[in-house]
Amino acid sequence: MKAIQYTRIGAEPELTEIPKPEPGPGEVLLEVTAAGVCHSDDFIMSLPEEQYTYGLPLTLGHEGAGKVAAVGEGVEGLDIGTNVVVYGPWGCGNCWHCSQGLENYCSRAQELGINPPGLGAPGALAEFMIVDSPRHLVPIGDLDPVKTVPLTDAGLTPYHAIKRSLPKLRGGSYAVVIGTGGLGHVAIQLLRHLSAATVIALDVSADKLELATKVGAHEVVLSDKDAAENVRKITGSQGAALVLDFVGYQPTIDTAMAVAGVGSDVTIVGIGDGQAHAKVGFFQSPYEASVTVPYWGARNELIELIDLAHAGIFDIAVETFSLDNGAEAYRRLAAGTLSGRAVVVPGL
Amino acid sequence: MKAIQYTRIGAEPELTEIPKPEPGPGEVLLEVTAAGVCHSDDFIMSLPEEQYTYGLPLTLGHEGAGKVAAVGEGVEGLDIGTNVVVYGPWGCGNCWHCSQGLENYCSRAQELGINPPGLGAPGALAEFMIVDSPRHLVPIGDLDPVKTVPLTDAGLTPYHAIKRSLPKLRGGSYAVVIGTGGLGHVAIQLLRHLSAATVIALDVSADKLELATKVGAHEVVLSDKDAAENVRKITGSQGAALVLDFVGYQPTIDTAMAVAGVGSDVTIVGIGDGQAHAKVGFFQSPYEASVTVPYWGARNELIELIDLAHAGIFDIAVETFSLDNGAEAYRRLAAGTLSGRAVVVPGL
Amino acid sequence: MKAIQYTRIGAEPELTEIPKPEPGPGEVLLEVTAAGVCHSDDFIMSLPEEQYTYGLPLTLGHEGAGKVAAVGEGVEGLDIGTNVVVYGPWGCGNCWHCSQGLENYCSRAQELGINPPGLGAPGALAEFMIVDSPRHLVPIGDLDPVKTVPLTDAGLTPYHAIKRSLPKLRGGSYAVVIGTGGLGHVAIQLLRHLSAATVIALDVSADKLELATKVGAHEVVLSDKDAAENVRKITGSQGAALVLDFVGYQPTIDTAMAVAGVGSDVTIVGIGDGQAHAKVGFFQSPYEASVTVPYWGARNELIELIDLAHAGIFDIAVETFSLDNGAEAYRRLAAGTLSGRAVVVPGL
Amino acid sequence: MKAIQYTRIGAEPELTEIPKPEPGPGEVLLEVTAAGVCHSDDFIMSLPEEQYTYGLPLTLGHEGAGKVAAVGEGVEGLDIGTNVVVYGPWGCGNCWHCSQGLENYCSRAQELGINPPGLGAPGALAEFMIVDSPRHLVPIGDLDPVKTVPLTDAGLTPYHAIKRSLPKLRGGSYAVVIGTGGLGHVAIQLLRHLSAATVIALDVSADKLELATKVGAHEVVLSDKDAAENVRKITGSQGAALVLDFVGYQPTIDTAMAVAGVGSDVTIVGIGDGQAHAKVGFFQSPYEASVTVPYWGARNELIELIDLAHAGIFDIAVETFSLDNGAEAYRRLAAGTLSGRAVVVPGL
Repeated sequence: MKAIQYTRIGAEPELTEIPKPEPGPGEVLLEVTAAGVCHSDDFIMSLPEEQYTYGLPLTLGHEGAGKVAAVGEGVEGLDIGTNVVVYGPWGCGNCWHCSQGLENYCSRAQELGINPPGLGAPGALAEFMIVDSPRHLVPIGDLDPVKTVPLTDAGLTPYHAIKRSLPKLRGGSYAVVIGTGGLGHVAIQLLRHLSAATVIALDVSADKLELATKVGAHEVVLSDKDAAENVRKITGSQGAALVLDFVGYQPTIDTAMAVAGVGSDVTIVGIGDGQAHAKVGFFQSPYEASVTVPYWGARNELIELIDLAHAGIFDIAVETFSLDNGAEAYRRLAAGTLSGRAVVVPGL
Repeated sequence: MKAIQYTRIGAEPELTEIPKPEPGPGEVLLEVTAAGVCHSDDFIMSLPEEQYTYGLPLTLGHEGAGKVAAVGEGVEGLDIGTNVVVYGPWGCGNCWHCSQGLENYCSRAQELGINPPGLGAPGALAEFMIVDSPRHLVPIGDLDPVKTVPLTDAGLTPYHAIKRSLPKLRGGSYAVVIGTGGLGHVAIQLLRHLSAATVIALDVSADKLELATKVGAHEVVLSDKDAAENVRKITGSQGAALVLDFVGYQPTIDTAMAVAGVGSDVTIVGIGDGQAHAKVGFFQSPYEASVTVPYWGARNELIELIDLAHAGIFDIAVETFSLDNGAEAYRRLAAGTLSGRAVVVPGL
Repeated sequence: MKAIQYTRIGAEPELTEIPKPEPGPGEVLLEVTAAGVCHSDDFIMSLPEEQYTYGLPLTLGHEGAGKVAAVGEGVEGLDIGTNVVVYGPWGCGNCWHCSQGLENYCSRAQELGINPPGLGAPGALAEFMIVDSPRHLVPIGDLDPVKTVPLTDAGLTPYHAIKRSLPKLRGGSYAVVIGTGGLGHVAIQLLRHLSAATVIALDVSADKLELATKVGAHEVVLSDKDAAENVRKITGSQGAALVLDFVGYQPTIDTAMAVAGVGSDVTIVGIGDGQAHAKVGFFQSPYEASVTVPYWGARNELIELIDLAHAGIFDIAVETFSLDNGAEAYRRLAAGTLSGRAVVVPGL
Repeated sequence: MKAIQYTRIGAEPELTEIPKPEPGPGEVLLEVTAAGVCHSDDFIMSLPEEQYTYGLPLTLGHEGAGKVAAVGEGVEGLDIGTNVVVYGPWGCGNCWHCSQGLENYCSRAQELGINPPGLGAPGALAEFMIVDSPRHLVPIGDLDPVKTVPLTDAGLTPYHAIKRSLPKLRGGSYAVVIGTGGLGHVAIQLLRHLSAATVIALDVSADKLELATKVGAHEVVLSDKDAAENVRKITGSQGAALVLDFVGYQPTIDTAMAVAGVGSDVTIVGIGDGQAHAKVGFFQSPYEASVTVPYWGARNELIELIDLAHAGIFDIAVETFSLDNGAEAYRRLAAGTLSGRAVVVPGL
């Protein structure tokens, strides 16, 4: 079958032909219907050999949707042909975190050598993929896989980040979204549908802010050196109750901290250069602002997102590619010329 | 000054002339701009002498808005002329409940003889009223007092009831509102703006359900003997995550319990006949459904509601009366011929 | 192998010889080291044929501990010989409730025919038992299986019930435990170790109250017609912040409601006669008392309990029986002559 | 009357004679029974003139206890002679934060010129003090004012910090307390009584750790360059669920971050040099560790602490001084030769 793989350190992703896999006991084989292309793929492919730990060749793609094509022994109650999306942050399923669905924080994944698809295990950028357990599948019924597959990461990550802050997003509060791309434009929609906060979106260009407005931001502010001051003009002295930074470079983190209010949540989602950070200390950060760096999301949260999708609340911007053109999707991603999320559709 | 008072057990409320009050130390005098008329006034006026504990004559009105006309000694930081609404469930201000703003559950109010305005203390149905402390005032800026005064009870009571349930109102969940009148039609709007739940409204007639739809209910169901079955057709086996009963008679409470899902909240807000109740026990109520009877709301919650009003989320139905016609408002309330909340405007 | 089975409607449990089972794909075979005997076994054996839905013959025992004896295909990371206890309320593992570990509220168990061991599936009162998935096992290391096995129900059920109420159990608050037997005496210990509340225990005899005092109750009250009044003498007008009723007959539920304070939790855990209930309504229950009926507990909660057991906080009263004498354990349970939890130890 | 005042920038606190104050409308006059001496007094007296904003002369003391000596006009329900402690972080009483008792985060204090006693307003280190409102008093009954007065800051600050983390302090979790002095030794006691966590205490010397053990720490670790490694030997890879840093210099904050687990709370309470900080960012802090800097506590929390004191849970180490020797208390504080909290007792 066809797959998009990362084959050598420093190489570009390429189209390869590999054997179609068979599901072992407890596993599920999916015929892939859609697979998302993500900045974090770029991040791992930029790592030098000594830091790269995902195996080679690696079939890419940690956002996956598909139809159940076959099930291994012991798998029951899952019909062939069911439309599903894949919960990506696989864990052991049994530890304290996993027992609550927080497989993104599995205590034993490293020890047991468990990796997410596309980030160690073979990913979704192929005609077929193996999912290690039915618990990592969420049925999507008649939802369009192409529009839905970004919810597995570009939706789940902001949703998880936002859920902890909902009690703070009362009437009269402000939520600031820095970076309105793949994750950010979903975050804006989630904030609008789940809270009464006034949503302020920041990005570096007028056309990106146009998308932010289109998907529901009440206010938009150019993300430049005056950004914090301009946000404060809107929030006044109370500041923001929640700041979500989907960029994660030092200037955006500094802006985030500068607009955060007393008792707020500051949530850094973007990896940036992997070195930027917020400073939390007396006289340096607002009283009781809780600053945190979450990772992906929980199993139940993906189910909740699919329920929200059924309710029709999302307007997800996607650009589609065939598997044959999958490498091109990564080139466009790196070049910053994509409009919305790149989704590879094997059937194209 | 003019006031609407309850003067004798069993009498109708009547227009009286009483002395204009003066604020004592720590008190505030308001020139009333709007005062709401409420079912619970009817309830207390229906009580026989041995159960009536509110004093006679009683100036009615526990929903009040006004302009600060004068302040007593020791009151600082409150400008004459400020537009405010009155937080009604007055408590001692110092006990454990009051220290958190839950004056509606003051531990010492009875012992100290503290009563809400219009329910023991002189109320808002007059040209002027005394508020015992600046902490019972919330500034409303340029909001219309007539449209805003119902928020102090018809808004605050459902808001308090809904806040405890927000974490349960995830995507894919259902919230059921029984009774779409003064409180219920605000509840629908709050649910729509604060949660992702599908809102199902029940009432006894098509025109009442029309208002429910107008203010945002996704689905409406006639409140009759088949109501539970018809709601279950919408929710399926999962049932409702929240049921709010603003009526509180046995048939509506029975419907509430019949549509509640596992782990849901059932919140009885309507007083009904004061005898109806939910039965909570094994094989009689859904597992972990939390059934409760709240009362009014907290100080911070009224501030939050006013912030929501500034954000323009409310569409409050009101019918206005002058003080001279205030007794007529009560007659119309009793006859059930009001459309929306009756608000008395002394200036009319 | 030997097993204790319920073989005919109305019969006593009896010792039988049945084939030793083999684990299928994804399953685990345990050599049972301890199995608890519970009132709810009695309850289901008391049901008339038309209400009995658990299959015949039924191997009893929904509290199980064992050593891993063999694993089916696809089971990885679980060593033979590992000491475990069994999480009993099996669900599908995939629905919204199960995805968070709340398999006790599985949305699909009934539809898929999934039953707990000893309550439909073959239970722990045997030399060996099959557990359908490794996720239903919690390793216990060197803890004594006999003292630990009651935690799977007699510990998990009160722990789940108590967890929702911990934020209410501040300093100066009161927690009331009605019924100090198998579940109640664990509840007292949990309340002492997890909260700052004053714990008041109620039971029908002085010797039962002696056990309550021994395991940590601050105050004990005889559970009779004056019980509520006597509890109120301790709590004063604030009442209890939490009442746990492990009995569930009408008199105990009435006591529970009579001692509950404003804003309290009343949690009915005992099944009683399956008809008793609390009445929740205006003028009939304290304001904002949340009344609920939970069932068993969550996966992560059993892990947390085992962690508490490792910390040595529990003093669990047990009386042991061999499999040959297992039927006797049920006779003693029915006669009320057990002191502590009856545990069957196949190796005796 | 006698008072201990800070009279000139850079001067030592000195004993002065000032007029006995009279309570205005709404105010209360206390005859001081005990007043705590705190590091933060030292901090403000170390500030250069351009940063010092508390007025001169300043009567010191933000931890106060007293007997009600007189009340101003409009104060009701407060008996002369009542034993009370003073809630210190005075706010406006009316803003959104204050309405919930979070006067420590008053939105308007600065604008209105409201300051805590001893930090702007005249403090408790005097024979008498004025409290601006009865809501800032908590009755203590027959508790010893000397042992109780430290709860108003040295107790309230850690209690507020710990309350947000209680849901994370399940069985099997670890709580780390860095700095076991005035605040830290109360924190250890609170953690032991309010949670099931294993408490690990860090300090710089064996005798300080002896006090930590005496008041309940399960484990003690010397606070040096190997501290994090030694804590990790206890917690294993899960790390701490809560780290409280009562010191706040860079080395202790670095230790705090190094021992924090995934999903933990890191709470910086110590002011340190006012420049140290935690770094929160990808690959630099544990996933979803929430890092925050709280300030003092809420009104209801002081009530809860006094309830805990009535339950006898505290063992507060104090060293007493007369007003004549109050300046000596500050000298001993600065020299680090105090054992426990310094408390000035005007009646000595």
